[in-house]
Amino acid sequence: MTEQALIKMSEEQIAAALETHSEWIELNNQIQRTFAFDDFITSMKFVNAIAEYAEQVQHHPDMLIRYNKVTLTVSTHDASGITQKDFELATKADGLV
Amino acid sequence: MTEQALIKMSEEQIAAALETHSEWIELNNQIQRTFAFDDFITSMKFVNAIAEYAEQVQHHPDMLIRYNKVTLTVSTHDASGITQKDFELATKADGLV
Repeated sequence: MTEQALIKMSEEQIAAALETHSEWIELNNQIQRTFAFDDFITSMKFVNAIAEYAEQVQHHPDMLIRYNKVTLTVSTHDASGITQKDFELATKADGLV
Repeated sequence: MTEQALIKMSEEQIAAALETHSEWIELNNQIQRTFAFDDFITSMKFVNAIAEYAEQVQHHPDMLIRYNKVTLTVSTHDASGITQKDFELATKADGLV
């Protein structure tokens, strides 16, 4: 992670990043995506993979598990907004499905 | 699980059950408790223990993980309300902490 990862992104930067993360939306100064899986077990495998990554990079998304659906909501508290670190997590999550 | 576990409970029955599950609240025809842990890893251990139980009994709560906090929200879709099965899950969750 570079220092830049912790600088709050501008609306223009967020809009550009969302173009390459088309399943994600911006919502209340956070980015969010809901992933749909075949069943609960697959949801849990995904959540545990995200949890492992989150611990590695010390950046923890909110995760809502609803049977076969998992919603990730990501922001950077230290920057009071959305940073490159959030999009790195989004890229990681997108790569898992 | 008995057949009775799937019968929607009355408000009186729910009120009585909440007396022995004092950390839980009733909310929109569901019961809910937020558990606070020391850290994210402990949250994940709890979530995985609940997930294992949920698969065993085929009754899956909604689980929201927010770093060191986990919120369980439980209802029985087949009964369109709160059943004994929900309080069995609450008892299991309470026993884990």
